[in-house]
Amino acid sequence: MPDLTVGWIGTGIMGVPMVRHVLRAGFSVNLYTRTRARADVLVSSGANWCASAAEVARGSQFVVSMVPDSPDVESAYLGPEGVCRGLAFGTLCIDMSTISPETARAVSAEIGRRGGSFLDAPVSGGKTGAEAATLSIMVGGDEADLRRAEPLLRAMGKTIVHCGPVGHGQLTKLCNQILCGVNLLAVCEAMIFAKKVGLDPQTMLQAVSAGAAGSWALSNLGPRMISRDFAPMFMVDLQQKDLRIALQTAKETSAPLPGTALASQLLSSNQALGEGREGTQALIKTLERLAGINL
Amino acid sequence: MPDLTVGWIGTGIMGVPMVRHVLRAGFSVNLYTRTRARADVLVSSGANWCASAAEVARGSQFVVSMVPDSPDVESAYLGPEGVCRGLAFGTLCIDMSTISPETARAVSAEIGRRGGSFLDAPVSGGKTGAEAATLSIMVGGDEADLRRAEPLLRAMGKTIVHCGPVGHGQLTKLCNQILCGVNLLAVCEAMIFAKKVGLDPQTMLQAVSAGAAGSWALSNLGPRMISRDFAPMFMVDLQQKDLRIALQTAKETSAPLPGTALASQLLSSNQALGEGREGTQALIKTLERLAGINL
Repeated sequence: MPDLTVGWIGTGIMGVPMVRHVLRAGFSVNLYTRTRARADVLVSSGANWCASAAEVARGSQFVVSMVPDSPDVESAYLGPEGVCRGLAFGTLCIDMSTISPETARAVSAEIGRRGGSFLDAPVSGGKTGAEAATLSIMVGGDEADLRRAEPLLRAMGKTIVHCGPVGHGQLTKLCNQILCGVNLLAVCEAMIFAKKVGLDPQTMLQAVSAGAAGSWALSNLGPRMISRDFAPMFMVDLQQKDLRIALQTAKETSAPLPGTALASQLLSSNQALGEGREGTQALIKTLERLAGINL
Repeated sequence: MPDLTVGWIGTGIMGVPMVRHVLRAGFSVNLYTRTRARADVLVSSGANWCASAAEVARGSQFVVSMVPDSPDVESAYLGPEGVCRGLAFGTLCIDMSTISPETARAVSAEIGRRGGSFLDAPVSGGKTGAEAATLSIMVGGDEADLRRAEPLLRAMGKTIVHCGPVGHGQLTKLCNQILCGVNLLAVCEAMIFAKKVGLDPQTMLQAVSAGAAGSWALSNLGPRMISRDFAPMFMVDLQQKDLRIALQTAKETSAPLPGTALASQLLSSNQALGEGREGTQALIKTLERLAGINL
């Protein structure tokens, strides 16, 4: 591989293991994140610290952003110290955050005006997928840009699918989040029912996980609910942010999503009780409150 | 294996492939089902036709029932021509239908009084699981009885889990159906959203199936929704029967199941429109009616 530099913005739960894989794949990494201390572990692994997103962009062939929400992406690219201030002609910017499709389109347009190109490439698989480099990556943008990005994306993910033009990666990710939200509710209801009728939730899990009831949520979040491990694979607050975008987009297109709306309403209880920074498996606590029991 | 005879009652979508595997495993099969014509294919494969459930029981070391609902199980075991009329001392009866836990307990008690024993052993995996002999089997009853039944169950299933005393197989199956019902709703909502926002549903499926959004329902029912294949893997009417038992049991134990109730209410629209004998993937038609579009 020629010596290529990736400018990276954002080092949260997902960003840190993703950058590790990018470094391992042989890319140089220019790094910026708002809280400098969170980058230390990567700087000591060989990433170069930069003082701003604009500086990250200078001399990078790729720019990747992995930040929480639409305003963070706007500020990373379009802010006074943003990527667009330092963008070299021909740079390929890849936003792997989950944000609104409109923001993806707006950022893409501005980057295009400055001679760069843009892919929206949100991911699924959470912390474990990021650590194992088995993320599913949903890509919106030009096919030629995706081909250029592929060696970089391959360092982080396993399933890489071209979903359509810019914005379609984000729209596909919203489908993903609809599924995650409702599948999560399914797991919680099965668990609460099991406990209420006198089953051992652990044995129930073992009996049903391999059949037609099976899901990623059941196999990965179910055991954590039982062992009371609420460390975030994916935070309630971020799931709610994604469901907010999904429900807003659904409203604009008159798509009825009753199960998704229900899941989001129930996750609000977790936020009301200060559990927003826990993993989404904390939804079981809301069901426990409703049922008046603990698993 | 010694020459063992299995008395079998019920030859629907599930029963036919299950009996085939039992015959292949070397058991003799005595067969009874209400509609004689549906047994022909198995009789020509070597099963012995019997005129009643009582006759099926005579001389069988095992009796297996695989029928639609609680009243069918009651009549198969306790009716005037039922299994109990022909039960030999020591016969092990295994009901693999999905019925109410109370009925399972009542039938078990009557069989016990007549010197037989009983396991409730409902299954998950649908038609494809029955055909591939990869069913998940959820067993309630005595562990010693399960050990006796295991060579027979192994002919039909892969995951065999002892869930507790009689009735706990059915209760575990209800957890399974809660998961299936809500996961199905998740798939329908993601599909409708995808179509409404201009994504290709097929590409969306491909992008999200391997990640945190993945489920058996997504991988198995999603493609059928797209190809408009509504042949039953598992019928809407039977899913509704199972959800009725689940919601009834939940009411009795004060277990709140808002997502399950929602899924069941939406499946009522399929029944209202004459789609009750289609596969559960027909729920997409209800969502299409709500959204005013077709996939």
